[in-house]
Amino acid sequence: MPSYSVPLRDMKFVYNELFDPTDISALPGFEDATEDLINPILEEAARLAENELFPLNTTGDLEGCQFDNGHVTTPQGFIDAYKQYAEGGWVGLPCDPKYGGQGIPAAVNVLMEEMACSANVSFATYVGLTRGAYRAVNTFANDDLKNQFLPKMVSGEWSGTMCLTEPQCGTDLGLIKTKAALQSDGTYTLSGTKIFITAGEHDLTQNIIHLVLGRLPDAPKGIKGISLFLVPKFLPDTEGNPSTRNPIFCARIENKMGIKASATCEMNLDGATGWLVGEPHKGMRAMFTMMNDARLGVGIQGLGIGESAYQAAATYARDRQQGRALTGAKTPDAPADSLLVHPDIRRTLLTMRAFTEGARALAVWIGRNIDIRDHSNDAEAKKQADDIVQLLTPIVKSYLSEAGHDNAQMAIQIYGGHGYIRENGVEQYARDARIAMIYEGANGIQALDLVGRKMPAHMGRYLRRFFHPIQDWIGAHTADPDLQPFVLPLAKAFGRLQMATGQIAKAGLKDPNEAAAASSEYLKLFALVALAFLWARMAQTAMRQKDSSEPEFYEAKIKTAQFFMERVLPQTGALFSSIMAGGSTLMNFSDDAF
Amino acid sequence: MPSYSVPLRDMKFVYNELFDPTDISALPGFEDATEDLINPILEEAARLAENELFPLNTTGDLEGCQFDNGHVTTPQGFIDAYKQYAEGGWVGLPCDPKYGGQGIPAAVNVLMEEMACSANVSFATYVGLTRGAYRAVNTFANDDLKNQFLPKMVSGEWSGTMCLTEPQCGTDLGLIKTKAALQSDGTYTLSGTKIFITAGEHDLTQNIIHLVLGRLPDAPKGIKGISLFLVPKFLPDTEGNPSTRNPIFCARIENKMGIKASATCEMNLDGATGWLVGEPHKGMRAMFTMMNDARLGVGIQGLGIGESAYQAAATYARDRQQGRALTGAKTPDAPADSLLVHPDIRRTLLTMRAFTEGARALAVWIGRNIDIRDHSNDAEAKKQADDIVQLLTPIVKSYLSEAGHDNAQMAIQIYGGHGYIRENGVEQYARDARIAMIYEGANGIQALDLVGRKMPAHMGRYLRRFFHPIQDWIGAHTADPDLQPFVLPLAKAFGRLQMATGQIAKAGLKDPNEAAAASSEYLKLFALVALAFLWARMAQTAMRQKDSSEPEFYEAKIKTAQFFMERVLPQTGALFSSIMAGGSTLMNFSDDAF
Repeated sequence: MPSYSVPLRDMKFVYNELFDPTDISALPGFEDATEDLINPILEEAARLAENELFPLNTTGDLEGCQFDNGHVTTPQGFIDAYKQYAEGGWVGLPCDPKYGGQGIPAAVNVLMEEMACSANVSFATYVGLTRGAYRAVNTFANDDLKNQFLPKMVSGEWSGTMCLTEPQCGTDLGLIKTKAALQSDGTYTLSGTKIFITAGEHDLTQNIIHLVLGRLPDAPKGIKGISLFLVPKFLPDTEGNPSTRNPIFCARIENKMGIKASATCEMNLDGATGWLVGEPHKGMRAMFTMMNDARLGVGIQGLGIGESAYQAAATYARDRQQGRALTGAKTPDAPADSLLVHPDIRRTLLTMRAFTEGARALAVWIGRNIDIRDHSNDAEAKKQADDIVQLLTPIVKSYLSEAGHDNAQMAIQIYGGHGYIRENGVEQYARDARIAMIYEGANGIQALDLVGRKMPAHMGRYLRRFFHPIQDWIGAHTADPDLQPFVLPLAKAFGRLQMATGQIAKAGLKDPNEAAAASSEYLKLFALVALAFLWARMAQTAMRQKDSSEPEFYEAKIKTAQFFMERVLPQTGALFSSIMAGGSTLMNFSDDAF
Repeated sequence: MPSYSVPLRDMKFVYNELFDPTDISALPGFEDATEDLINPILEEAARLAENELFPLNTTGDLEGCQFDNGHVTTPQGFIDAYKQYAEGGWVGLPCDPKYGGQGIPAAVNVLMEEMACSANVSFATYVGLTRGAYRAVNTFANDDLKNQFLPKMVSGEWSGTMCLTEPQCGTDLGLIKTKAALQSDGTYTLSGTKIFITAGEHDLTQNIIHLVLGRLPDAPKGIKGISLFLVPKFLPDTEGNPSTRNPIFCARIENKMGIKASATCEMNLDGATGWLVGEPHKGMRAMFTMMNDARLGVGIQGLGIGESAYQAAATYARDRQQGRALTGAKTPDAPADSLLVHPDIRRTLLTMRAFTEGARALAVWIGRNIDIRDHSNDAEAKKQADDIVQLLTPIVKSYLSEAGHDNAQMAIQIYGGHGYIRENGVEQYARDARIAMIYEGANGIQALDLVGRKMPAHMGRYLRRFFHPIQDWIGAHTADPDLQPFVLPLAKAFGRLQMATGQIAKAGLKDPNEAAAASSEYLKLFALVALAFLWARMAQTAMRQKDSSEPEFYEAKIKTAQFFMERVLPQTGALFSSIMAGGSTLMNFSDDAF
């Protein structure tokens, strides 16, 4: 069984040292968000993740969810763990205090989410969906709906779902068939079939609040005719307590590769009662609001699993004795040396660390921008922060999910044959991590979002928001001799990103397939530059602490930064070449030849 | 459920067009190996793979092997399929006719193995292990043992295993503890515990012939004290029929990530009777002989699964309608366009094809060299062929297993959410493919074998065997205008390989950790150059056929070659940069900081 302990020291480094925490505590509503408040929250969250969620991870995978005649049973221990989670106020951690939330900054919440995903990603899906549903209702529903449903969702008494996908449509939501019709009392009846509904049915909460995409009778065709509805499993009575069973039933749960303790449901709506959320036919806008939150959450799943995979691999590598150091036995009295003597093992572990620590910085960066966007009184600051969130969301979703899965694969490799055995727990990380590249918009769709929407938005304004600080930082530190090992590779990779951006913008204007053909590689190039920028700044931050009482901690940061520049960042060259090759070869390949 | 049909046309292209098949039929013993013999064999093998093995793939995964009190039951249908396989003479396809084998060239056998692995890799493991055991016995055992055991192994009546790993040693076989002691009758008794024994126990054959590594009482420490023993499950009586049950028992089978229909056994030897194979303490040499065969077989598992993953993904992409072409609807009357209109889907499919078709050429290339090594009368030709086999074995094992797994992951991604569902069959490809990177020497060990053994061997002779033909080919075609899109990228990548070789040789001489730190990236760089060489030649071969009756077939070859050069080969640049960065950053990272 792997072990996991929350990397609190690393988290605090990012939150308090890499970034300035007073940026957040200066925001209206976050006056109390100082170290005195945040550190105990992180520490308490860590105890919960390590002691309650993590022990259920392997058992949850082996047991899975059970389906019986419309009812879903979660694995043993999940009900108790959920109860503790909800009663501790963790479901509503980042939610509005008006509805009982803790009103904690998003920049802190991403760290809490990372812990939950590291400890037990299946468990985390139940809570994550509630948050996405909360956000859609809070942003788009009328006050009646908000007052009726949000407090119980925030408290965790009720959970939420997003019911989007149907058998004929995953990515292409314009094909949705679920029908909605207005009733005389102002409610709607909904009928249709939804598939792949995470947490669509389970035994953790009294009630489940489904947010359902459907089509009104007069709806325009395609995605411009989609509306969003709130459809509770139990209709509340006049006191607000669950009462009449609404005909939205779970027909089956899927037998999946991973996240087996997360119930993935087929949901049948058979004249279920619902309320319209937002305006008719404007459901896609509301859906994207919750989806964008969910996309960040999915990226953080990659980070979380990537971290636990790293810890498992590092522990195994330290303890397992096999072979000898090439330069002579390091522990001659032992039957063999630790795996840590082998350069390729160290390379693998450092690749994993370079990802998780960089990704954590990226997640907190985007969390900070969410906080500024949602809480600042300064309109310009809000806009700038939103630009960064918009731009980075597809990048965080795709890159973190992909690299997190890579980390899990590397952990298996370090375990060797033992990594392939279920009871040893690391192959589960790979299976659990695999879905993050797919759900909430497959990674290819994120790449299209980046080149098709985010890149051209407002004449490239989002891009400038990202490019200018990097350019400024490089400019300010070009002459700093200590920072050369970081500034130079960053500048080179950044130059590639700029050239690739120009090329895609130009070629894509003439032929959108050209932009699409380069999109996946462009997203990865973008992500690597973002991580390089953060690693360079982490190295700089660590260098300033050379006289601290934790020299090893800062030394490891600097070395990992160096490793990232030397052994990870060069990928940008290959990505750049692929992008510049253009799309004609693949577009001219005959369909029949595939 | 995915579909699979054997890519016979592609196989024949490699066997008969890319390479000269008369090189093989000119070898002693292969006079009959002409198209008239080989084509029907491939076609019959294809029928077997498609109709008998493939239908048991998904069911075998869902059912798995069952263990009960020492006995292992394979999934439903496996016994019948094995019977057909054995009775058709397929187990002994490449084996010596002296023992009842078909004496078919290795270059043909690799294609048969590819089919079996594409159709049902769990099934293929049972047969693959018998071949490895056959080869060890045939090469090292005395005539008595050979005559007694080989005919029944070749016929498939009895199967074989390789019992190497113990709980305390996977990679590091010097730590083996299994004890062997000489008896007065010349046999040995063996006691110890072996783990991860593929096909260690099952219900497919009357008898199982275990090849067991153990230690004699007077054995030197470490790997120089390992001997190889033949230990049958049932000792044969004087007629050669299975008689006394030998105390080598299966204690449990593993619950694994994949290849669930392949029984992975813990085997306890409790005074089991065995015979020495080869000389005392020289077991590692014999072990490497069967291991090298097995390594090729493992690489071919990657190719095989990579091919079926490609076919599944291509079929799904063609059939699934989702979204619209960015340049306007392609099938406006349908609710959506086929996934094939999307550039990123095409990029993914072409990445998969570029791998499988290149890998197939590489596998046949190595198969041809095995044939020359084993059958030629020309000592120099034999030596040259052996050099190539030695050099390419770790590359085929590692690169094909890794890229095959990547193909499976790409297939899941094209399927989207449906790819994550077990009953749809593609996630199984990823789970099944994952083990190939680990067993028969983890890929990191292959990379060490390449830089530590194969590179310096005979003062670089193996390398020259590979470098010179590439250099010659580039030289001969530099001026050919049609081949420019292939010659130039090949030359660039080859230049990187040469420089990286020089750097590793130089730095590794001073500090072996420097070579090891670069080894994984070097192996991958090497593999990409090998594939580029083969792709350039496949493009050349296809160009010569422009007036043929199959213009689409050859056109697709040329386009795929171009895609490989444009979008896959640029990875060599990143690999080269990583190699040149050296190992100091990772070696200087503090052990305690991991």
